[in-house]
Amino acid sequence: MSANYSQWYNELVLSADLAENSAVRGCMVIKPYGYSLWENMQAALDKMFKDTGHVNAYFPLFIPKSFFSKEASHVDGFAKECAVVTHYRLKNDPSGKGIVVDEEAKLEEELIIRPTSETIIWNTYKNCIQSYRDLPILCNQWANVVRWEMRTRLFLRTAEFLWQEGHTAHETAEEAMAETEKMINVYADFAEKFMALPVIKGRKSENERFAGALDTFCIEALMQDGKALQSGTSHFLGQNFAKAFDVKFLSKENKLEYVWATSWGVSTRLIGALIMAHSDDNGLVLPPKLAPLQVVIVPVYKDLETLEKISLVANQLKADLQKKNISVKYDDRDSLRSGWKFNEYELKGVPVRITIGPRDLESNQMEICRRDTLEKQSVSIDNSAEIIEQLLEDIQQNMYNKALTFREENTRNADTWEEFIEILDSKGGFVSAHWDGTAETEDLIKEKSKATIRCIPFNNPQEDGRCILTGKPSKERVLFARAY
Amino acid sequence: MSANYSQWYNELVLSADLAENSAVRGCMVIKPYGYSLWENMQAALDKMFKDTGHVNAYFPLFIPKSFFSKEASHVDGFAKECAVVTHYRLKNDPSGKGIVVDEEAKLEEELIIRPTSETIIWNTYKNCIQSYRDLPILCNQWANVVRWEMRTRLFLRTAEFLWQEGHTAHETAEEAMAETEKMINVYADFAEKFMALPVIKGRKSENERFAGALDTFCIEALMQDGKALQSGTSHFLGQNFAKAFDVKFLSKENKLEYVWATSWGVSTRLIGALIMAHSDDNGLVLPPKLAPLQVVIVPVYKDLETLEKISLVANQLKADLQKKNISVKYDDRDSLRSGWKFNEYELKGVPVRITIGPRDLESNQMEICRRDTLEKQSVSIDNSAEIIEQLLEDIQQNMYNKALTFREENTRNADTWEEFIEILDSKGGFVSAHWDGTAETEDLIKEKSKATIRCIPFNNPQEDGRCILTGKPSKERVLFARAY
Repeated sequence: MSANYSQWYNELVLSADLAENSAVRGCMVIKPYGYSLWENMQAALDKMFKDTGHVNAYFPLFIPKSFFSKEASHVDGFAKECAVVTHYRLKNDPSGKGIVVDEEAKLEEELIIRPTSETIIWNTYKNCIQSYRDLPILCNQWANVVRWEMRTRLFLRTAEFLWQEGHTAHETAEEAMAETEKMINVYADFAEKFMALPVIKGRKSENERFAGALDTFCIEALMQDGKALQSGTSHFLGQNFAKAFDVKFLSKENKLEYVWATSWGVSTRLIGALIMAHSDDNGLVLPPKLAPLQVVIVPVYKDLETLEKISLVANQLKADLQKKNISVKYDDRDSLRSGWKFNEYELKGVPVRITIGPRDLESNQMEICRRDTLEKQSVSIDNSAEIIEQLLEDIQQNMYNKALTFREENTRNADTWEEFIEILDSKGGFVSAHWDGTAETEDLIKEKSKATIRCIPFNNPQEDGRCILTGKPSKERVLFARAY
Repeated sequence: MSANYSQWYNELVLSADLAENSAVRGCMVIKPYGYSLWENMQAALDKMFKDTGHVNAYFPLFIPKSFFSKEASHVDGFAKECAVVTHYRLKNDPSGKGIVVDEEAKLEEELIIRPTSETIIWNTYKNCIQSYRDLPILCNQWANVVRWEMRTRLFLRTAEFLWQEGHTAHETAEEAMAETEKMINVYADFAEKFMALPVIKGRKSENERFAGALDTFCIEALMQDGKALQSGTSHFLGQNFAKAFDVKFLSKENKLEYVWATSWGVSTRLIGALIMAHSDDNGLVLPPKLAPLQVVIVPVYKDLETLEKISLVANQLKADLQKKNISVKYDDRDSLRSGWKFNEYELKGVPVRITIGPRDLESNQMEICRRDTLEKQSVSIDNSAEIIEQLLEDIQQNMYNKALTFREENTRNADTWEEFIEILDSKGGFVSAHWDGTAETEDLIKEKSKATIRCIPFNNPQEDGRCILTGKPSKERVLFARAY
């Protein structure tokens, strides 16, 4: 894994059959196993969104070009990397060269494939909002978006990706800020409880803010190669989009005011985070709460008579586990060796593998192998379902603990520039260091070290110090890392 | 409703807050109430797909232009109405005119926004299929697609719409044909059991086949204005796409053969069907199995003391219904009159409305109003949850029966051209008539009557007759209608 992390990652995505590159530059095909991970993530997140009062809706894929120009910093952030629809028809080339664009079917105004939907959504909200009674609007959308990235990598950075984007509208700044915070907490809970991924919650520096936001909160996770990965963001948009799209409401005080906004999103990038945080040289290691398959039972046998006996036990266990809502497969395919199956399920990251052979039957036992530690134990057949249920919880917790220990061991203070560079070059991880608070210094640090400010953690201890680059005074450390 | 059906439909979609037109021509915004209908449809269909062995995956939004040309009839069917991406960047206009397309960022090959995904998917399947062991592939995708329709109508025909598209690959023609039939049956079951919508299953005539299919099966439903609506299709694609994308497999007999294919889909159009099949002049009438909200409880009171007493009963009933997995809302908002609430929930099609007032409390009763018939009954509070549970089932069944009766009453035989036109003009509905089996006659009938062959029903009785237009001999009647 360590020799060439990037190659290891790419090969694992392919060999575990999660995704592959498509014929379209930068666009991936998410294969069934990868997509079922996304479905499990979606289900958990969607429930959390609904439990916090949000509803889903769907807005157009296309954004008129003129909408982009309405919010100045937004267009700067997205115009350079967008897919533009200019025509609406193909035709047979009159000179017989096949199918060509019909130049007569040129759009009056070009349409942009959404890279994010603030503009089209705020143009819609304009029609829905008249008075404070129409607020808040707490909307989420599950959708595909396109950002024309030049260097792409499966899940981590692709031209098209799947995500959800929440877009809310509020009466007051305080309420919008509370929503922004609520949703970054929802993301952190999801990452920690479902992905077994500890994250640091914080605020982005001005440089790293979303194009159009007054404040961006994020969750940052550490990958096993020591690089950080931004795993979710929640933006306080102030009144920027309300002003750009002229969305006003009559307040309780009977005054016409601009609406306050937030937006927040996570994407299929989380699948990349899941892989890079937990997997090992044998393949994927998936947290039980998101694994498409939680338990697999593999029979080990020489003759069909033995298989029949094993199947009796296996099918009973399967039924017992299903009653506990545990997903389980009994793989009794005769065409494949059990050794091949062991490798396959290890590669796919199935949290628990059960093996039953003739000697196990004799002693009324079965062998349980957990994917996270690869440890094996023999347990009695009689209470195996309960043991497996508990084991799945243990694996979930252990994966989280392991990732947390890794992050703690790889978060270091640096007090000088030399120390800062030395840590980044030799160990990676998060580096907590003083910074003078200016965008110029941040740019310079990035240029010289390739590290960026991942976030200013919430509840950050205040401490006098000096900027690692300029030596100017600083009131707190911020978290740097090289990042995906 | 009958005066101007089309206007009634459009106004209902808007007033029930299901969807609205967006700033982008032909694209709609699906609002939360409309989207929750789609979510309920998706959940039911997705389970049916998985129960029949299918898995979900995700393929790119973009299709290289050259892919289209590979299957001749496919390009004819879709090239005339597609959105074409030609550039990947915007820039500031040097002459200060705002944001313009960056002509330097022109794609070498144009990309088409998928109108359907056969081509990109079969290009992917090429890499996945080597031997018969890799078959069948039973894949489904939930996605947005774009067809550049000139005349659009909310849900029924929009430039962008949401749908699912199944794409399967098989060893033999028989297996692919069995899959094609299986999925049209799944669609029919879904329409009848969840949408309370009786449908006729049949085969499309050659003219109406999917571009690239050897055979298209469909389900056809009748709307309350007497027009038909195609509600789902399942295509037997033969080896057309396998040949176009050179997808071969080594068979059990060790021969290299082209793979056999099917595709099948339903879309947000089904929401239009749901509205037009059941709704009335008071608003939506939703089948309980798909209604976002199944039961609403409205208190009727003058003073807050009474409201408190009502709330005790209402909250108990709400808890009892939730235990039965019935979705229920207690609307005790003090800012709105109960009469306003009655209208609102009627408009929204909530299947059951409970009213509790002071006199009800005295007699230990509550009033139940069912949306489908608007009938009211008083029931004892004590066993109300059971009564409501049963009532929801009755409503579901009654809506189906009503729609079935309507369809049966509006399906007529025509034996002459005059009769055919007379039925279409005065009554509409399905017209069962003889046809000489040629595409030319079908075109002529369409031109003269605006009616098309909706399908040749499965298990169609064989009967000698003469074509209503040409008088040529015919062996069976086919089903005509004017259609959406």
